[in-house]
Amino acid sequence: MAEKVSFDTQISGRVRIATESDVPHLHKLMYQMAKYHDYTKVFNATEASISTNLFNSNNPCPPFYSVTTFILEVSPDTFPQKTTKNSIFDPILKTINLDSPILDPELELFNTDEHNNVFVAGYVLFFPSYSGYFEKPGFFIENMYVRECYRKYGFGKMLFSAVASQAVKMGFTKVDWLTVGWNNNAIDFYLGMGAYIMGDVKRFRLSGEGLDAFATSDRGC
Amino acid sequence: MAEKVSFDTQISGRVRIATESDVPHLHKLMYQMAKYHDYTKVFNATEASISTNLFNSNNPCPPFYSVTTFILEVSPDTFPQKTTKNSIFDPILKTINLDSPILDPELELFNTDEHNNVFVAGYVLFFPSYSGYFEKPGFFIENMYVRECYRKYGFGKMLFSAVASQAVKMGFTKVDWLTVGWNNNAIDFYLGMGAYIMGDVKRFRLSGEGLDAFATSDRGC
Repeated sequence: MAEKVSFDTQISGRVRIATESDVPHLHKLMYQMAKYHDYTKVFNATEASISTNLFNSNNPCPPFYSVTTFILEVSPDTFPQKTTKNSIFDPILKTINLDSPILDPELELFNTDEHNNVFVAGYVLFFPSYSGYFEKPGFFIENMYVRECYRKYGFGKMLFSAVASQAVKMGFTKVDWLTVGWNNNAIDFYLGMGAYIMGDVKRFRLSGEGLDAFATSDRGC
Repeated sequence: MAEKVSFDTQISGRVRIATESDVPHLHKLMYQMAKYHDYTKVFNATEASISTNLFNSNNPCPPFYSVTTFILEVSPDTFPQKTTKNSIFDPILKTINLDSPILDPELELFNTDEHNNVFVAGYVLFFPSYSGYFEKPGFFIENMYVRECYRKYGFGKMLFSAVASQAVKMGFTKVDWLTVGWNNNAIDFYLGMGAYIMGDVKRFRLSGEGLDAFATSDRGC
């Protein structure tokens, strides 16, 4: 079926909350993002770990109170309008007219629905953050990724906008994220969105053996 | 009573999970931290907002699954050994011998218990973080503060160690935090702890009117 798909004259995007059935696609997207950042040597997420961390039914926190993922899907067809009432998150839809066709070399890998022309194109992963300085919490965006062939159409902005909308809906007053210093494309994109760069920061980490050693280093009494 | 208190020969520290009764002290500590970072112009946390954000009984997430705060208390007396079983977090205790006395100019302000010589000296505020690159989650430390007269005795390390211990207990594999670039004291302290600096990053934020505008900018279909 997928051979027949082509994004010739238009492409529709849909941002919806991820479910456990998205895990195989999420894993592929996460690996692609790690590859883009030259992080594959430390990448150790598995489909099982993603299921556990994002969709464990024992986690007492509902979406938006802990780690939450939105999926970006695309289709050459227009998505049906949202019909559900009182859902936790109403999908966001957008259709773009194309000047030239989009060719997706990984169409089969990212097909979400065999009966419809719907393909996963990206994701954003975020969680609530809170600083003692401010009256209101915010969201922190940890990962945002759009597959290469779907870039430059505004889908990244659509993912950010979905998080920003949810933040506003919850009375939150900020959305923060980090960018590696060398990624000028991303930096220009974020500045163009109206985001601003906070003062110079350094990011610290304790992990692995250093974390284990430290965890037990200062418990004497 | 507090006039009688003096830290002459020893000081004991206790790190325990914060409760709603700590809010007035937490608010004072948060303001002091904002002052240290020259952030008082944007500081708008109130006792009410801290109660809502940290201790709202409607929040479905238990401690460690969302924003969590540990309080550092000090006393010239030795704290009683922990006796509770199966508590959510066993307090961490430590006693230090002093070469010279400690004078706390704000002793009355930070008294936690009128019947005991117990005073709030600092806090750490953190929440779970998760990246799609890794099998396991981590904690992100948003705020860590020790009042000035209690610095250089290892209490900051004790707060970090408490978070690191909890991370290890939960099977997490990292603890991350940011430091402003000008704070060389903090940078040296963290490097001395065995933490490492991740690659160069920029911190972005969407907030205020920029956030509101962005949240509604891209919802067309």
